[in-house]
Amino acid sequence: MADYADRLHNAIRIKGTPALVGLDPRFEQLPTEVVQNARESSSDENEIAAIAFEEFCKRIIDVVCSLVPAVKPQAAFFEQLGAAGCLALQRVIAYARKAGLIVICDAKRGDIGSTAQAYAQAYLAGEDPQAAPFAADALTVNPYLGTDTLEPFIETAAQRDAGLYVLVRTSNPGAASFQDHTEQNQKLYQKVAASVEEAACRAASTANGNYGFIGAVVGATYPLELQELRQAMPHVPLLIPGYGAQGGGAADIASAFDSDGLGALINSSRGINFAYNREPYKEQFSPEQWEQAIEQATRDMIQDLAAQTPAGRLRQKG
Amino acid sequence: MADYADRLHNAIRIKGTPALVGLDPRFEQLPTEVVQNARESSSDENEIAAIAFEEFCKRIIDVVCSLVPAVKPQAAFFEQLGAAGCLALQRVIAYARKAGLIVICDAKRGDIGSTAQAYAQAYLAGEDPQAAPFAADALTVNPYLGTDTLEPFIETAAQRDAGLYVLVRTSNPGAASFQDHTEQNQKLYQKVAASVEEAACRAASTANGNYGFIGAVVGATYPLELQELRQAMPHVPLLIPGYGAQGGGAADIASAFDSDGLGALINSSRGINFAYNREPYKEQFSPEQWEQAIEQATRDMIQDLAAQTPAGRLRQKG
Repeated sequence: MADYADRLHNAIRIKGTPALVGLDPRFEQLPTEVVQNARESSSDENEIAAIAFEEFCKRIIDVVCSLVPAVKPQAAFFEQLGAAGCLALQRVIAYARKAGLIVICDAKRGDIGSTAQAYAQAYLAGEDPQAAPFAADALTVNPYLGTDTLEPFIETAAQRDAGLYVLVRTSNPGAASFQDHTEQNQKLYQKVAASVEEAACRAASTANGNYGFIGAVVGATYPLELQELRQAMPHVPLLIPGYGAQGGGAADIASAFDSDGLGALINSSRGINFAYNREPYKEQFSPEQWEQAIEQATRDMIQDLAAQTPAGRLRQKG
Repeated sequence: MADYADRLHNAIRIKGTPALVGLDPRFEQLPTEVVQNARESSSDENEIAAIAFEEFCKRIIDVVCSLVPAVKPQAAFFEQLGAAGCLALQRVIAYARKAGLIVICDAKRGDIGSTAQAYAQAYLAGEDPQAAPFAADALTVNPYLGTDTLEPFIETAAQRDAGLYVLVRTSNPGAASFQDHTEQNQKLYQKVAASVEEAACRAASTANGNYGFIGAVVGATYPLELQELRQAMPHVPLLIPGYGAQGGGAADIASAFDSDGLGALINSSRGINFAYNREPYKEQFSPEQWEQAIEQATRDMIQDLAAQTPAGRLRQKG
């Protein structure tokens, strides 16, 4: 058994990049071919979309599995289709695991006591893909309800060698409305960060400067905050959304990494999933070449991160 | 079309009680008969549990639909079973709607932008049960990410005459860890409450002292806070968990109501679902009489609320 931080960082070293590909299927943006295939299999609109989401995500996984260490399916887009979508999510997660990818399910769950435990058991499979129906390696969780409500997630993650990413600082324009609430010069997100660092060190052996299995989501839209939070949580693997489509550039996120280029995953979802509809790739590739556009966008992101962040050292060593 | 607050309060008036029955199925506590029936239909453990959850919840609905205005299924317990559980959740929600109940899906979702919109479209059917796969009247949502992240939920709820319940103050022992973070004498939960009241008044016509469609979840374990929050959010329907199994009594929650006995739903989940395993009902009813135990526990809760809170006035008028 290897704990989540070891598995994650091994994968990052092997692939030589911290690029994390989000899987955010949106029906109206899917390639025509994928929608047509799905329409031949069902007449129910939600089922058609679920079949199309599954094919689309699996083909993205085929393209990126040799390039990146991890993928992050967004649960909301699947849930929008009801049980058919939930089945597609299960299958996409299982497919990504079989392809050797770390899977972080982005579901932002949070609840109290035995309800939190039920969510943990639903999504945290950790090292054994049979251990949970949505068999992810890690799950994003929301801390608003309180530190005690994170405990059932932490316990299950510890049992299963799975990981967690606690929302600390989000990348939306209104993130400050509650996260900046300030008591004695400590903003709420700073308090959450301190609590996550403390929990990470308590739950795992971090004595030699190792990372624990409790991570944090930190938006890339505020570079100075990112630097501050990296320092406040030295044993916490970071998940950084906001690269690409949400406006953050690679230089802004350099401070997320340690000197070995480890300690952070950088997420891009729409910028990769729908590269074929976006500049500059829609000039270079025809709509039928959507997989090539995804591959090129992924390679460009990897190159950008290697050139402008300490993640470049991963490749020099490899 | 009637807006959510009107539909909710009509239902409360007709049933003469603000009692809200939570649907929190837990496999290990299900009646033997229900588990046996399910085992005859499948050999897959998650499917067996999903079939059992569906039968159990439908039979609870049969018992309580003439007694209470609303039910609150807890999404986590269904998700724990994967897609099979999600299908059971869809069916339980649809069944409760057909039985004339208001359905509040307790999923505590929260995310940014188009992801929040996907969650809203997944769970908020409002007045049209065909409008969403998990076709609830209302959804619980988590505010940590910021006020802008509530907007997609509010827009969808407005379009569909659905309702929302924003987590303001939760009932767990560690609720204070972040919710009590205090800036200039204003605790975070008070700031969230002010924001919810403002949003409720902005999103709906509350000019004549009416309630809007944006509600709040306020734990019943802190009676003084409940009183304060009722006053801070005069146009916000409250959802009060923590009655019964979590330790709150009816007298503690009297301040949640307005003088007509409206403005609040009081939730009991385990105390009703598993009454047949609990004092005093397990002395009065055999295990086979689990539905009678549920009915008695529901009637006792209704009586308790009528005797000790302004909700008693609902019955005097009826």
